[in-house]
Amino acid sequence: MDRWSTEFGAKGGLFRRLRDGCAAEWEAYTWHPFVRALSDGTLPLAAFRRYLVQDYLFLLHFARAEALAVVKAESVEAMREKAAAVGAILDETRMHLLYCADWGLPESGVRAEPESAETVGYTRYVMDRGLSGDILDLEVALAPCAVGYGEVALRILADDRRMARGNPYESWIAMYAGDEYQRLARGAAARIDALGRSHGGEARFALLAPVFAEAARLEARFWQQGLDAAR
Amino acid sequence: MDRWSTEFGAKGGLFRRLRDGCAAEWEAYTWHPFVRALSDGTLPLAAFRRYLVQDYLFLLHFARAEALAVVKAESVEAMREKAAAVGAILDETRMHLLYCADWGLPESGVRAEPESAETVGYTRYVMDRGLSGDILDLEVALAPCAVGYGEVALRILADDRRMARGNPYESWIAMYAGDEYQRLARGAAARIDALGRSHGGEARFALLAPVFAEAARLEARFWQQGLDAAR
Amino acid sequence: MDRWSTEFGAKGGLFRRLRDGCAAEWEAYTWHPFVRALSDGTLPLAAFRRYLVQDYLFLLHFARAEALAVVKAESVEAMREKAAAVGAILDETRMHLLYCADWGLPESGVRAEPESAETVGYTRYVMDRGLSGDILDLEVALAPCAVGYGEVALRILADDRRMARGNPYESWIAMYAGDEYQRLARGAAARIDALGRSHGGEARFALLAPVFAEAARLEARFWQQGLDAAR
Amino acid sequence: MDRWSTEFGAKGGLFRRLRDGCAAEWEAYTWHPFVRALSDGTLPLAAFRRYLVQDYLFLLHFARAEALAVVKAESVEAMREKAAAVGAILDETRMHLLYCADWGLPESGVRAEPESAETVGYTRYVMDRGLSGDILDLEVALAPCAVGYGEVALRILADDRRMARGNPYESWIAMYAGDEYQRLARGAAARIDALGRSHGGEARFALLAPVFAEAARLEARFWQQGLDAAR
Repeated sequence: MDRWSTEFGAKGGLFRRLRDGCAAEWEAYTWHPFVRALSDGTLPLAAFRRYLVQDYLFLLHFARAEALAVVKAESVEAMREKAAAVGAILDETRMHLLYCADWGLPESGVRAEPESAETVGYTRYVMDRGLSGDILDLEVALAPCAVGYGEVALRILADDRRMARGNPYESWIAMYAGDEYQRLARGAAARIDALGRSHGGEARFALLAPVFAEAARLEARFWQQGLDAAR
Repeated sequence: MDRWSTEFGAKGGLFRRLRDGCAAEWEAYTWHPFVRALSDGTLPLAAFRRYLVQDYLFLLHFARAEALAVVKAESVEAMREKAAAVGAILDETRMHLLYCADWGLPESGVRAEPESAETVGYTRYVMDRGLSGDILDLEVALAPCAVGYGEVALRILADDRRMARGNPYESWIAMYAGDEYQRLARGAAARIDALGRSHGGEARFALLAPVFAEAARLEARFWQQGLDAAR
Repeated sequence: MDRWSTEFGAKGGLFRRLRDGCAAEWEAYTWHPFVRALSDGTLPLAAFRRYLVQDYLFLLHFARAEALAVVKAESVEAMREKAAAVGAILDETRMHLLYCADWGLPESGVRAEPESAETVGYTRYVMDRGLSGDILDLEVALAPCAVGYGEVALRILADDRRMARGNPYESWIAMYAGDEYQRLARGAAARIDALGRSHGGEARFALLAPVFAEAARLEARFWQQGLDAAR
Repeated sequence: MDRWSTEFGAKGGLFRRLRDGCAAEWEAYTWHPFVRALSDGTLPLAAFRRYLVQDYLFLLHFARAEALAVVKAESVEAMREKAAAVGAILDETRMHLLYCADWGLPESGVRAEPESAETVGYTRYVMDRGLSGDILDLEVALAPCAVGYGEVALRILADDRRMARGNPYESWIAMYAGDEYQRLARGAAARIDALGRSHGGEARFALLAPVFAEAARLEARFWQQGLDAAR
């Protein structure tokens, strides 16, 4: 079995069941041509830039989704965790603007950029799951992003075709492969497992699986918009 | 076993588990002094009038809660059922105003009455459960009202101390004991049972039971405000 | 001035200000190549079929959005209107399935079809506006659909290039050009005008205009997916 | 004019209009017998303890309401402010538990206490305004708490009957009269003024005034529950 496939979530836990339940969508997302091109360094700059700008807009809605998770949280402890996530993502947006500037994208331009159809689709889908469902529904819609980026980074590290030296995207890879993000991704998978136990994940699997799969599909489209911009 | 205690929900189903899980609160609600005084005809008119006026305001928020259930519904069929409930409750508000007029409460007065603390508390608690939780959480918060009124009416019918002739509140009793309402109440209990199966009711029992119990407590307070008005 | 441009909303009212505030997006939506091809009868069947199937899925979320409008409505009268809209849309979904069947699309297939990215994007954007904003924000997000289809039909009627006889899409045109739909579209524009007055539309114009424009853009993408399917 | 009445919000701004629009309710809240008894040191210990315990439960929902404000915020800057408020309130809950312990109320007891009807009513009313309305509606429902406590403290400082030495409630008074809280209260009033300008506060005054007044009434009931516990 591949190394990365055992990294997130417990064996028999809800996260792995959800991921294995949409193996094709998960593969199409976590090993998308955009990701492979990050790995071997062949990604066109225009593709990466498009991704970076939209990722900033994505983060703002991701913070809103985590705030909605505070509203829906099942305990004071969960409220604290989710509130910390809101703060961390809002801090990350500042870092992200600096990172964008490193890639020749000034803050004013990034902030003025309209949301793409792909960004609108993914982010509002998550918000609507938050409105419709409970904390588990919302976290399941968020998990492909939080955990998937962790897996993407590990897959790149393990990739035979990886351009390890002089890869222009090394800073991006290093961030998501780093301890801090990996801890966060493992935590997100563990939270799905825990909510699965407390909130009837087993019995609700048929309802949750399509949400997880849809979020994975929407993530793949998010990468794709980068490639489309570089055509 | 009492006749009425077997009427709603299936044996072993989620509704009965929830009701039996808060036997004291359920008894305090469904056999509240207000209810007993409806049964034996001793309820002061001022108490009933206070109840009627606030019940009108309650119904408006009950319709909102059923509309939120349309937003959160798990299928097209459930959307249709919940949409029909919204329509039925809004129709009922018109009937309710006519009924209030029969009791000497003109429409303009009823519509101008401010919401009591008891009405605000109960209705907004339900709406917040709808915001926080999924369709099952919301329906569990609504069930004590929908099913409880059906049980209240059956308990009155079976009451030894019931004033069967000349009871000033006979029209109220007849409405809730009637086939139409009884069918609705049985349907509401059956829906909880069904959602319990599809949405992990067994695993989520520890989370759902306090919601059901709180709604029962808030219903008891709703009766109590009537008695308080007649002191 | 063109005939259709004076049909919906009052002069100086919020609806016209919103529409005139995004003239390019409005034109791109209401006179989209898909619409022109409906008018002159050249639309490929595959394009129309794709549109019909996704429109069914769209309607379900449109009904959810109207249900959310019941939750957020400013008066009992508005609750009744919005509840009627939910019922009407849910009835329309049944008609829509029959209509799809006329075009060789059996119900089972339509109901099993996954939502497209365009459908997810548009519908969830509206739901999120409903979560974020008040009743006016939500209605502004809904208006390009409700009013726009009325305008689309009138523009087709006035089109020089319209294939008036033997147009395969005549039934679609007739429905939206018909009195019933036109009344509904005028009502939706009048409601925006009224909410504009009661809910600070003038002062909030800078906040509302981007929502209306985005919904118009998402509508244009919705047509476009039909054309893309026929390439 | 009284000193405290000029402290919060700008002259002619929305906050002052809202407060002056419900002068009786505002007075009944900010100079409630509970407050006067805090000032002259005559408040029974049982009343204060009851208040403290319920205030802990209140704070948790207040944090949820601020998290909902992140979801609904009008800008990235507003998101950051509201996210900071969530964090600050959650930190305050920890301090509050320590403070309760000082008053002989151990953490386990405070956390196990059921919510009172008054706490449920107030907190869920605010959450429902957040679901129904936009960011301005939500902030207006929150303002009587945030700003009112600041005014309460200033009124106590200016009170002729104040027990300045040996007042058992001095620590409570000092906290809310302190610079940190006063800054927060002024900020909350200024935010209402600013949102009033950007979100049509003038035109929406007739819709907003009842929300502000109801929240003030619910605050007065919150004090009253303390007195009721000491009867």
